[in-house]
Amino acid sequence: MQSWIDVRSDTVTRPTERMREAMLRAEVGDDVYGDDPEVNALEREAAERLGKEAALFVPTGTMGNQLALMTHCRRGDEVILGDDCHIVWHETGGAAVLAGVQLRTVESRLGVLDAEAIRRRIRTGDDIHCPRTTLICLENAHSNGRVIPLAAMREVAELARGHGVPVHLDGARIFNAASRLKVEAAAIAAEADSVMFCLSKGLCAPAGSLLAGRRDFIERARRHRKLLGGGMRQAGVLAAPGRLALSVMSRRLDEDHENARWLAGRLAQLPGFEVDPAAVDINMVWFGVPASLDTARLMAALETAGIKANPPENRRMRIVTHHDVDRAGLETLLGALRSVL
Amino acid sequence: MQSWIDVRSDTVTRPTERMREAMLRAEVGDDVYGDDPEVNALEREAAERLGKEAALFVPTGTMGNQLALMTHCRRGDEVILGDDCHIVWHETGGAAVLAGVQLRTVESRLGVLDAEAIRRRIRTGDDIHCPRTTLICLENAHSNGRVIPLAAMREVAELARGHGVPVHLDGARIFNAASRLKVEAAAIAAEADSVMFCLSKGLCAPAGSLLAGRRDFIERARRHRKLLGGGMRQAGVLAAPGRLALSVMSRRLDEDHENARWLAGRLAQLPGFEVDPAAVDINMVWFGVPASLDTARLMAALETAGIKANPPENRRMRIVTHHDVDRAGLETLLGALRSVL
Amino acid sequence: MQSWIDVRSDTVTRPTERMREAMLRAEVGDDVYGDDPEVNALEREAAERLGKEAALFVPTGTMGNQLALMTHCRRGDEVILGDDCHIVWHETGGAAVLAGVQLRTVESRLGVLDAEAIRRRIRTGDDIHCPRTTLICLENAHSNGRVIPLAAMREVAELARGHGVPVHLDGARIFNAASRLKVEAAAIAAEADSVMFCLSKGLCAPAGSLLAGRRDFIERARRHRKLLGGGMRQAGVLAAPGRLALSVMSRRLDEDHENARWLAGRLAQLPGFEVDPAAVDINMVWFGVPASLDTARLMAALETAGIKANPPENRRMRIVTHHDVDRAGLETLLGALRSVL
Amino acid sequence: MQSWIDVRSDTVTRPTERMREAMLRAEVGDDVYGDDPEVNALEREAAERLGKEAALFVPTGTMGNQLALMTHCRRGDEVILGDDCHIVWHETGGAAVLAGVQLRTVESRLGVLDAEAIRRRIRTGDDIHCPRTTLICLENAHSNGRVIPLAAMREVAELARGHGVPVHLDGARIFNAASRLKVEAAAIAAEADSVMFCLSKGLCAPAGSLLAGRRDFIERARRHRKLLGGGMRQAGVLAAPGRLALSVMSRRLDEDHENARWLAGRLAQLPGFEVDPAAVDINMVWFGVPASLDTARLMAALETAGIKANPPENRRMRIVTHHDVDRAGLETLLGALRSVL
Repeated sequence: MQSWIDVRSDTVTRPTERMREAMLRAEVGDDVYGDDPEVNALEREAAERLGKEAALFVPTGTMGNQLALMTHCRRGDEVILGDDCHIVWHETGGAAVLAGVQLRTVESRLGVLDAEAIRRRIRTGDDIHCPRTTLICLENAHSNGRVIPLAAMREVAELARGHGVPVHLDGARIFNAASRLKVEAAAIAAEADSVMFCLSKGLCAPAGSLLAGRRDFIERARRHRKLLGGGMRQAGVLAAPGRLALSVMSRRLDEDHENARWLAGRLAQLPGFEVDPAAVDINMVWFGVPASLDTARLMAALETAGIKANPPENRRMRIVTHHDVDRAGLETLLGALRSVL
Repeated sequence: MQSWIDVRSDTVTRPTERMREAMLRAEVGDDVYGDDPEVNALEREAAERLGKEAALFVPTGTMGNQLALMTHCRRGDEVILGDDCHIVWHETGGAAVLAGVQLRTVESRLGVLDAEAIRRRIRTGDDIHCPRTTLICLENAHSNGRVIPLAAMREVAELARGHGVPVHLDGARIFNAASRLKVEAAAIAAEADSVMFCLSKGLCAPAGSLLAGRRDFIERARRHRKLLGGGMRQAGVLAAPGRLALSVMSRRLDEDHENARWLAGRLAQLPGFEVDPAAVDINMVWFGVPASLDTARLMAALETAGIKANPPENRRMRIVTHHDVDRAGLETLLGALRSVL
Repeated sequence: MQSWIDVRSDTVTRPTERMREAMLRAEVGDDVYGDDPEVNALEREAAERLGKEAALFVPTGTMGNQLALMTHCRRGDEVILGDDCHIVWHETGGAAVLAGVQLRTVESRLGVLDAEAIRRRIRTGDDIHCPRTTLICLENAHSNGRVIPLAAMREVAELARGHGVPVHLDGARIFNAASRLKVEAAAIAAEADSVMFCLSKGLCAPAGSLLAGRRDFIERARRHRKLLGGGMRQAGVLAAPGRLALSVMSRRLDEDHENARWLAGRLAQLPGFEVDPAAVDINMVWFGVPASLDTARLMAALETAGIKANPPENRRMRIVTHHDVDRAGLETLLGALRSVL
Repeated sequence: MQSWIDVRSDTVTRPTERMREAMLRAEVGDDVYGDDPEVNALEREAAERLGKEAALFVPTGTMGNQLALMTHCRRGDEVILGDDCHIVWHETGGAAVLAGVQLRTVESRLGVLDAEAIRRRIRTGDDIHCPRTTLICLENAHSNGRVIPLAAMREVAELARGHGVPVHLDGARIFNAASRLKVEAAAIAAEADSVMFCLSKGLCAPAGSLLAGRRDFIERARRHRKLLGGGMRQAGVLAAPGRLALSVMSRRLDEDHENARWLAGRLAQLPGFEVDPAAVDINMVWFGVPASLDTARLMAALETAGIKANPPENRRMRIVTHHDVDRAGLETLLGALRSVL
């Protein structure tokens, strides 16, 4: 029945059969009372996997990031982060409303932030004209599809530590980054004081993310989660599939990356399409479509072929691979593209 | 295994078997894209049931209330509400942080607010010294367990309308109120411009609430939901049991109320216990325990009997009945109480 | 030329000749650099007069109060205060916007707050449902014209101390209170951790207030003052008359109080006027005008007699005495009232 | 007695004799009641001079800018502005706290913002992931000392108009810009919907700024001014010298600019000093000091010569000319510099 090939994002992934069964059998309790065994187990397992003291289950990655801002910073503080990161672009301006912090951007070069550029922006003195820098945010894998080398993260982390400023990692796709870098997620998380990662997206859980860090930090974040209205009751029905996302699905992301690279290679062979297969780090393929291509025709052909895709913006198009898209689906996609050339 | 008799709150209810199965079979999509059929159906059904144009699924009742504040009001506005309501007492001070509004309380008499007291507080003029009243909040059923008569709500609603001020109803337990008042929930909702109600609590869904109101109001609330990090992806796994909560479980609350009244009658017979069965409107029984009763012994006896209850505060104790507690469970509770007398 | 008798408020007082001369000769500097000798002297003198470590010059009393909220509290905290105080009524809802705090009111009985009512509202535990009480505010003299006995303040101060909660005093008219109580202002200030008082109002300076408290508190408030845009440059031109307000004018308020009592006595003799001379604590006289009195005629008669007064609200009228109104002026006022009876 | 030559900033300027006399004679009233004739006159004159409908007197330029953000924008909106502007650098992070807005920066090239870079950041659609762009801010003269050509402002203004986005001008030194561009200030203000300018700084008033714009905008800003605690009483004592600042002092700034250019020329002749006289637009001279120069010795020599200056940062030093510094003072400064070479 639901036979669409949906390559708009990995957020569209549907829970696996095992996840459905886990929801059926999950032993649940009232998580606001701390009574939900699945949530408690997930929080423990997530903390362990990331090498942090504690973790907190939250409904969305956006809430996880915003809780980090609220918990690290006081109103009026300043946060340094990349100018193309998710917090700046896609969190509805929440940082100013919720945490009352000023975002101070540095130019991102494919997600990599220049440590010297950050250093010039750090303000930790007593000058009352200036907000205080109390957080630096990184993002890995970046929502633009690129992975940041560990060395680049470490340079920022050391700079931050030298100034007594904590680092938060938006690791919505940290397991994609770990797969690509061939390290454990904990090795990436080690460069940050707090980390958010998502169980949905490539990991296929229906909803939910985790914020991990020091125990006292997480306890303060728990209070802020309540304030934002993120404290659900029998959250175990989400935590149960989330545990499978964390333990099982986080290990299969190479398959999505492999599919993305394969697709990039094929797209490169289409006349007029511009794509750099070497730039495909994870499960996202960005490419330029020919100037002569009519967008309406393109989208119609895709729809006819049973494909949901976001239309190109300024002739740039993004395809995202994930668990619910196989090679046959990608062949169908390629066929639809060829048909409009 | 999980054999506790949990009378701390109706928030501890666990999903029914039918709800579990609904989760297993739910057809889901990405709700941020508007693609989740279960969420869309739930939002339609909720709006229809309450007689409103549209509804929005949110993770918690707290988020639903806070979205109402954010969407009705601008920063610096004033909201009039009862001094013992949930927004004042149990939402972590969120109203000031999120909506930037000042809460102005009137004395609640068992949840009923005096219209004249409200009228004296309404400030809609241009005096720059004064915040503007842009919302009045009611709560029914009240979290203290009482139900507000429709006439009392209507008096406030008419006052509000006369001043051009909208009314929001915290109807976390609106179906308990409807059962008690022997009316449809829509009759209660008709006295408010926006209504929040919970699928968890007495309705047994694992998590989730709805905010209902005019279509344009709901669309603006949707943006605020994203800002708060409340926009989940395959939320259909929560919406599917939520639909059963709304259609099926909302019709059986009289059973919980009956049990509560029965319990109150029995408690009234225990020497030294103070309880007014006539004050039991819904599923909550408040009573005074004898001054001579040792709290530690009481709580130990309850635990031994397999009962989870909140300890008395200032000798006042609250027992909440719900779907997962039957007469036998209440008999066990009564036996444990008798044993410590 | 400017011959109005203005009894609307003591905020209308104009600077004295000595103040004008002080402005003419004030040695000024850039106060943001800490270079203004008049401001520095005023801050020292104010701290000393109130028995506090340090003080900060601010443009208005509202800013002084709001800085106290911002500096004592974090966003999401709760502040307990009287339901008729200036912060609740006349600061444009700023507390929620600026400090992000929730105001929790207790009933004020002529400005006196019941300590037990405060105690019941204090929330200092770890329950994540609840905001934390981090401040209690008192007001003395109250903007309703009454003075709070020292014993009543002390009871609240001791309660607060016992819970580790600081007390802020809105002492906009602290010198009126001190005159009435026949104590030094420092004796009143001793019951609070921070105090705001105004140089304008009865003290006749053109503008400016002081916030006083511990040194570290004042340094943090200085940063918040900058954030609110309250850090003026050559503020010495206001501080110079302010020093006279503090040293000279604060000692003559009995004269205004005496005039107010005298006026109350005369008003009591007018047929149909309701006034309780014993309720006149400071420079404000509240009284009821006869139901038969036509407001338009009343206001016209006052204007004709050269009197600016606020019209009665619900038949209650307020007259405020101050430095710029003498007995002859009050006789003129009485004459105008008599003329419309 | 006060014989320092203070070249740290033009914020250190002291009121002139005529200003002192104006304060002595100012006819004042309670400005919160709208009764202060000097304030009313100043607001009228400022609006007229800038070609706007109305203006509002505020204690500081920072408050003027923040009121513009609060009045143009709603919480959660986004503001586009230069990455080196005053609002980003020197307003204590207030934009997030007060207006709840997200600052989105574009690279400033000596104060000039690339219109295309702005265009790429404008977000006015309905995507709930994104804050809405509701303001663009420019600064002229820029606090870095440079003047923005009218054509560059106009390009941004037209872009903004095309997207229905208003423009606010931080014109703290708009009269310096007007002098340099040889136009009336109104010609600069015409490119913006709202403008803030300062009476202090080069215009020598002790304190105060104006926010100008449409009448309804100014009325809403007046309410926000009250909320921030910026509504002073007998503000006429500041408005009176402010009127002289506006009418008289705004016409003499060429003298300061001339002095700055003269100084730049002389500095260029000192061995090892790096200065570009052509880059001196207004009253600020930036220059590089020789790497060999010992900062402590430099500062000691300046102090000995009676000169207050800010120490170099990264070997860059700034000297600001103004009404209280004449050629003789600058000669003294040059002598002190020569003495340490």
